[in-house]
Amino acid sequence: MTTATICTIGDEILIGQILDTNSRAIATALGESGVKVLSMVSIADDSESIISTMEDSLRKSDIVVVTGGLGPTADDITKPALARLSLSKGFVENLEQKEIIKDILHSRGLDALERNLSQAMVPDTCQVIPNRKGTAPIMVFPFEKDSRFGHKCVLYSLPGVPYEALGALDDIVKDLKSRFALDSIIHKTIMTYGIAESSLAELIRPWEEALPKEMHLAYLPNPITGVRLRLSAYGGVSEAEIESQIESLRPILGEYLYADSDSSLQEAIGKLLRGTGMTLSAAESCTGGMISHLLTTVSGSSEYYLGSVTSYAEAIKEKVLGVEEGIIAENGIVSSAVAAAMAEGARALTGSTFAVSTTGWADAYGDSREPAGTLWVGVSGPSGTITRRFNYHSGRVINIERFAASALNELRKYILNNRGK
Amino acid sequence: MTTATICTIGDEILIGQILDTNSRAIATALGESGVKVLSMVSIADDSESIISTMEDSLRKSDIVVVTGGLGPTADDITKPALARLSLSKGFVENLEQKEIIKDILHSRGLDALERNLSQAMVPDTCQVIPNRKGTAPIMVFPFEKDSRFGHKCVLYSLPGVPYEALGALDDIVKDLKSRFALDSIIHKTIMTYGIAESSLAELIRPWEEALPKEMHLAYLPNPITGVRLRLSAYGGVSEAEIESQIESLRPILGEYLYADSDSSLQEAIGKLLRGTGMTLSAAESCTGGMISHLLTTVSGSSEYYLGSVTSYAEAIKEKVLGVEEGIIAENGIVSSAVAAAMAEGARALTGSTFAVSTTGWADAYGDSREPAGTLWVGVSGPSGTITRRFNYHSGRVINIERFAASALNELRKYILNNRGK
Repeated sequence: MTTATICTIGDEILIGQILDTNSRAIATALGESGVKVLSMVSIADDSESIISTMEDSLRKSDIVVVTGGLGPTADDITKPALARLSLSKGFVENLEQKEIIKDILHSRGLDALERNLSQAMVPDTCQVIPNRKGTAPIMVFPFEKDSRFGHKCVLYSLPGVPYEALGALDDIVKDLKSRFALDSIIHKTIMTYGIAESSLAELIRPWEEALPKEMHLAYLPNPITGVRLRLSAYGGVSEAEIESQIESLRPILGEYLYADSDSSLQEAIGKLLRGTGMTLSAAESCTGGMISHLLTTVSGSSEYYLGSVTSYAEAIKEKVLGVEEGIIAENGIVSSAVAAAMAEGARALTGSTFAVSTTGWADAYGDSREPAGTLWVGVSGPSGTITRRFNYHSGRVINIERFAASALNELRKYILNNRGK
Repeated sequence: MTTATICTIGDEILIGQILDTNSRAIATALGESGVKVLSMVSIADDSESIISTMEDSLRKSDIVVVTGGLGPTADDITKPALARLSLSKGFVENLEQKEIIKDILHSRGLDALERNLSQAMVPDTCQVIPNRKGTAPIMVFPFEKDSRFGHKCVLYSLPGVPYEALGALDDIVKDLKSRFALDSIIHKTIMTYGIAESSLAELIRPWEEALPKEMHLAYLPNPITGVRLRLSAYGGVSEAEIESQIESLRPILGEYLYADSDSSLQEAIGKLLRGTGMTLSAAESCTGGMISHLLTTVSGSSEYYLGSVTSYAEAIKEKVLGVEEGIIAENGIVSSAVAAAMAEGARALTGSTFAVSTTGWADAYGDSREPAGTLWVGVSGPSGTITRRFNYHSGRVINIERFAASALNELRKYILNNRGK
């Protein structure tokens, strides 16, 4: 299998100032092309580190993709280091990139300074892919029969600015396909919610153990989206074979499964409601607006989402949502009865088909009836109102996330079971 | 200088499915403690890769921090690999972590399965820091006189789930300070909002150029919190010296400065309102609940925050917030007049001292009056109602974040200027 190492150069990554997002985008492009990424590495703007890391990476993998750091000095160090690595005898001017540099600066109303034009100077050992997204060219260093590395390998050097680096990916993939015969890898993702990673593993163990050896399952848990399952198939497995494995997993997961690809609960809810004429509202207490926020991150949500009331103060629950004072006094503010009344109140206020509500203790305290971390969710709709209790212990901010996700999941299941009614 | 390598283990990072955010947080914590991070590396869930990468990292650096690969499911290879690396003779049960695992699962209403409890089994070569944020313990492998590495070094193994990994950072820093004499670095952070990074750099250039050479300023922009400025002082600079630099920066920044330490706009607002008896509400359209969500992430926000209405549908603006139909028809839904009426409506509905409102086009379309990316913010309070227009061009999700932050900043400035009245 053709293998790769991805390398980013830049002090600002190592001090935590910049989050490296280039490596992920490069990894995705390589993975989808059938290249196995063996490792990613971030190193300092330092010649010796660059050369020793490049040598090591070229020994271990067929392809090395390097992006410069975002610092202004990174470029000054990377290019001479790559010249040394490739045993270059000097620099040559790439006329095509030189014209691009002039064009780009001209379009910004600037003249090309010598410092800008020097970006068209490249080691005589490299091939150039002209880069129309930025002033720095893409440099390709082929090592066909270099005894230091012991196998045919190639190094691509991209600019560090994400827009420029990622704009070059299609060209890189095209170039490497001309150099290597790439294997196929297929990844399929499915989304689950409402079951912990360990219980999910127990539930699907017989299925997982029966997978053919070319397929591998990964568990990716997240407090808001639930556990994502990723099935990867290597070495000529067909789309149909991997689909058939997913089909046999579907009945085992049942209601836990909420989407067939990278997705979120709010997107799944949007999919259920879009085009049906049915509508949605929310009444939030402990989740403080997060449910409404998540619902409205979905483009097109205004088609089915009417709005919400965040009732942090008891008076708002009474005045706006019409939750009777007696219900709160009798059951406590965090209770099934209040969750139900809030959902019904939101539905009555907005005239929506469905409404979801939350009342709970997100912080480190509860009351005499319910402990810290308790959530009551209410969902109301044409076939009545249901409530459900949850308990989490993750601290305020993560509790709020888990609360919102649990409420969205109850809403999703309610819509799923009631949309025909 | 004490040096470190940060390593993340996980196929899902190498295929680009997950963005590695742990490494950045770990790098920040190490950097702030006076440790120099030499490199970051991401590798596959594979014993041989793990062991060879760890050996290489321990040879090159004093500290190795590893995250990932410790979850309870089948694809976990890290722990046995670390056992081999440390020449362990067997696994022992850590009773403290075992009790934590039971407590965490119990609090979620689950019984501890054998695979959960197996997380308390650790190689006999490691020291355990109990981890209350998750089921996997933090393992510390000291290598005092190991001839393979040739110097005193230590490896920390953290869980891969970001919430669990980052919760352990304080403990890690404490532990490594007991093992190494770290250089002193002092960092001071101040928060600004409402000025772009490049304009901010222009504004404070004379101040920045006059800094003593032991001090270094970093700009850390973020769409929600604004540009954070971090002043770092190396080599025995006193707290008083760095404070005096900050004091001289304060009048230059004026109203842009909103906090003296790592903070958020919603925390700054909480600080202005707490203990004053003054209260707050919100009316959100395009921000869809995000302002309310951000306000309620602050612990203790229920003291001053009453609640909000998210009026995605026009009918909710009219019915719940009392925005007259004629105002919308005459001015357009995204307008100064509607923003003002929404803020006044929220204030009237909830009886709050202050109210903030948003109406805008977050998606790729506008109307005949206002283009895509337009936001109108309203703030209402005892001294009247103000509105302000913004325009952003970042796509729906980031636009919503910028909209919410701009509204919070207008609210903050209004409270600041009106709290005495």
